[in-house]
Amino acid sequence: MAKSRSDSKTQADSPGRYAYDGLERLLHERSRLSIMTCLITHRDGLLFNDVKKQCAMTDGNLNRHLDALFRAGYIEVWKKEESTRSQTLFRVTATGRKEFLAYLQELERVIQDAQPASKRGTEASPLPGWRLGWTE
Amino acid sequence: MAKSRSDSKTQADSPGRYAYDGLERLLHERSRLSIMTCLITHRDGLLFNDVKKQCAMTDGNLNRHLDALFRAGYIEVWKKEESTRSQTLFRVTATGRKEFLAYLQELERVIQDAQPASKRGTEASPLPGWRLGWTE
Repeated sequence: MAKSRSDSKTQADSPGRYAYDGLERLLHERSRLSIMTCLITHRDGLLFNDVKKQCAMTDGNLNRHLDALFRAGYIEVWKKEESTRSQTLFRVTATGRKEFLAYLQELERVIQDAQPASKRGTEASPLPGWRLGWTE
Repeated sequence: MAKSRSDSKTQADSPGRYAYDGLERLLHERSRLSIMTCLITHRDGLLFNDVKKQCAMTDGNLNRHLDALFRAGYIEVWKKEESTRSQTLFRVTATGRKEFLAYLQELERVIQDAQPASKRGTEASPLPGWRLGWTE
């Protein structure tokens, strides 16, 4: 997991320079990225319905992704029985926190790599000696 | 596409606060994120083999993702015939550049949202009144 993070200082254009192996698939998926960001900002955890609302997800989808994060050990589940109903609360584990912060570091690397491009104007110049086309 | 970007200033914990609709699926996929970052940093485009090397991808995978980016209008393809072989060069279009920079802005929002958490210590405190468990 995130095994190439130590490569982040390799020189421009070296092999794998833009591979971003640290963007772990489990955390990179948009819904799980939403859930993890939402939960990590709530230190004492968050109730199912609050996560659902703040991430704008359906019950089924949220359950599926929470389950994946739980199986990976990234979140823990807390229950509370009250007179007539039970409540479920989710919180990021120490492992989840560590992995997510490492993932975010790799995201920052992507942004830093792309940053010089954001400062340039739009180019649409022809390339002398080349012709536009798509063939195999 | 990226339709909720204007929501980025909504207050904490409002509905959809962590939905990140601007993380467009086409660009968020890790391989395509690699390719786009690699290409956007090379203003005059890049040859197939250079993209392949710098993104550490196989021919088949790279072709598949380049095709998806081309169909979306995010990259253009240039050809050059030389005596014995033809060369193919890929370059980000103005549309691709615009969409990718908007996508990166949403990524930055994720990082900013999660940032306060990165400054805190690891917590593993019990939650009084709750018990650990996973049931539906």
